[in-house]
Amino acid sequence: MNVGGMPLRPLAAAPGRDAVVVIDQRALPHRLQFATLASPQDVFTAIRDMWVRGAPLIGAVAAYGLALQARVDAGDLALAAAAAHLQSARPTAVNLAWALQRLLPALLARPACERADAAWEQAGAIAEEDVRVNAAIGRHGLPLLQAVAARRPGPVNVLTHCNAGWLATVDWGTATSPIYQAHAAGLQLHVWVDETRPRNQGASLTAWELAQAGVPHTLVADNAGGHLMQRAQVDLVIVGCDRVSARGDVCNKIGTYLKALAARDNGVPFYVAMPTSTLDLALADGLREIPIEERSAREVTHLSGRDATGAVVEVQLTAAGTPAANPAFDVTPARLISGLITEHGVVAAEEGALRRLMEGQR
Amino acid sequence: MNVGGMPLRPLAAAPGRDAVVVIDQRALPHRLQFATLASPQDVFTAIRDMWVRGAPLIGAVAAYGLALQARVDAGDLALAAAAAHLQSARPTAVNLAWALQRLLPALLARPACERADAAWEQAGAIAEEDVRVNAAIGRHGLPLLQAVAARRPGPVNVLTHCNAGWLATVDWGTATSPIYQAHAAGLQLHVWVDETRPRNQGASLTAWELAQAGVPHTLVADNAGGHLMQRAQVDLVIVGCDRVSARGDVCNKIGTYLKALAARDNGVPFYVAMPTSTLDLALADGLREIPIEERSAREVTHLSGRDATGAVVEVQLTAAGTPAANPAFDVTPARLISGLITEHGVVAAEEGALRRLMEGQR
Repeated sequence: MNVGGMPLRPLAAAPGRDAVVVIDQRALPHRLQFATLASPQDVFTAIRDMWVRGAPLIGAVAAYGLALQARVDAGDLALAAAAAHLQSARPTAVNLAWALQRLLPALLARPACERADAAWEQAGAIAEEDVRVNAAIGRHGLPLLQAVAARRPGPVNVLTHCNAGWLATVDWGTATSPIYQAHAAGLQLHVWVDETRPRNQGASLTAWELAQAGVPHTLVADNAGGHLMQRAQVDLVIVGCDRVSARGDVCNKIGTYLKALAARDNGVPFYVAMPTSTLDLALADGLREIPIEERSAREVTHLSGRDATGAVVEVQLTAAGTPAANPAFDVTPARLISGLITEHGVVAAEEGALRRLMEGQR
Repeated sequence: MNVGGMPLRPLAAAPGRDAVVVIDQRALPHRLQFATLASPQDVFTAIRDMWVRGAPLIGAVAAYGLALQARVDAGDLALAAAAAHLQSARPTAVNLAWALQRLLPALLARPACERADAAWEQAGAIAEEDVRVNAAIGRHGLPLLQAVAARRPGPVNVLTHCNAGWLATVDWGTATSPIYQAHAAGLQLHVWVDETRPRNQGASLTAWELAQAGVPHTLVADNAGGHLMQRAQVDLVIVGCDRVSARGDVCNKIGTYLKALAARDNGVPFYVAMPTSTLDLALADGLREIPIEERSAREVTHLSGRDATGAVVEVQLTAAGTPAANPAFDVTPARLISGLITEHGVVAAEEGALRRLMEGQR
């Protein structure tokens, strides 16, 4: 995607194969700031502390983390330990495990002297595959938006939660890919952007992204979505996902489930953009089996923004000592989902359909 | 209720009958700050700009506003104009209209020379009635909490949204009244406090109130409630209301509807604490007929908190130019409501039951 008219990605491999450069997403929307990650530990920190976030992006960045390990010690034990460490950076999104579990055995199968180069190339392949997958999600999602536009005049109103955008992937985004492709095709669009407390990825990242791309949008508090749907101001919901169970339960940013309930109650289609790398067929019951990351209470009680002088400062919202809890994800049961938009097409959130889809790709 | 061990109310009439002193709720939770309102215009500003808020409290404060008008000009036109102006300060809560429409004709029926004293006394009567009503709501709600406690060991987990607490009324609160009475009765309780974006009344007011009263509580992002209910961490939901239609549709703080959907989806009882002054029997369809206040976008894009030096500063969360919308209330359809806790007992959210309740009180 373009930022200030220039093409940019949230992840770029250094030509010397000794680092990756990422957008440090903590500084957005106030500053566009980059960070150079030159070691597996740098990558671990960047993932754990959310300099980079978004299920597809952390998979690709973690792959480069393992490649950086292979540069310094490509022994079996060193690679396995680095992969385990990287995988522990965040527990919920399956893409992190997916990328590492794909890369590690492929490296171990080679002689040690080839592993550094192979790792770098395969990490690059994972990143490029993410771009192709997300572009395909956009192509398959586009007709859903076109169908609304064909039905009535005026902009198509899409609601999205969190950031399953360009910044959450290597390019295009997942939930935003149909939006960007529709915008490019000249469709009139308007996006309701959920703020997405407590980390405000909607306010900080999605609104920023959409503004860069010139897509009309309006930020709302997470509380507003049900009301907007009751008033027929939302044509469809598209969100991303961090892990999807075999029967189609979708784990995504906390609050997604509430929007799915409101969509169902108001007859609004609720779609999930899902690269098949996010599907975890080993998981039967999303509600019981997906580990939900519990993050720091400080993310709820404190918040950063720009003060009157333009400086970014952190403020405390609560009285000293207010206890807070911060579950980072929730699980939307498959029954509330209209469809999963994958790189292979739109599929029902239902075990048979998902297994058939994956078998068809073997 | 007590603050720092001293009894306090959010509204106190000055002994000289020339002003009311209110807690300026904009400064909470960082400072306990009072404001003296000495004219109808002061009262209008305090209501419109939310120095005072909460449906019952703004009704009582508005009554004093009309009494302050009667001190300077108690003529028919002056009183009617002041009442109309005060009523226009906020559109959604019916208590504002209820208090003024009760007071104004009573004053107009008297000789002008008696109106100032009568207005002051009747405003005081409205305030004292609010205290009695809320205490009765607490008594009627208490058995709902006791029933959970009788069923299993451990604390009773209540989730509440926004602030329908002591600070939203003259005393006790509405949704919090059963909680405070249960706490006083020695019941083990824990309250999940929704942050309540964009104005953060949960984080700023409810958490502060509960801490003053020693009630265990945990602040969560508004997004978290569905997840907590899925994990059986909520025994019941109690919220307040700003206007209730004849068939029991409940207009309350934006986001209430989402929690009601989640409660229904998880079999969690969803109760609304409703002083009957909040019931608007003239209104048939809550969804279509209740005017929803649209507040400033700045409440979504900016936020105040305490910085590292202890100073309260405002920060901007978004990039410059991010558009935002801010509907302040939503309507929860009666079908999602387990019961309305009124000062006369718990009643079904259903037109027949509501009309019988009100006829029984004539």
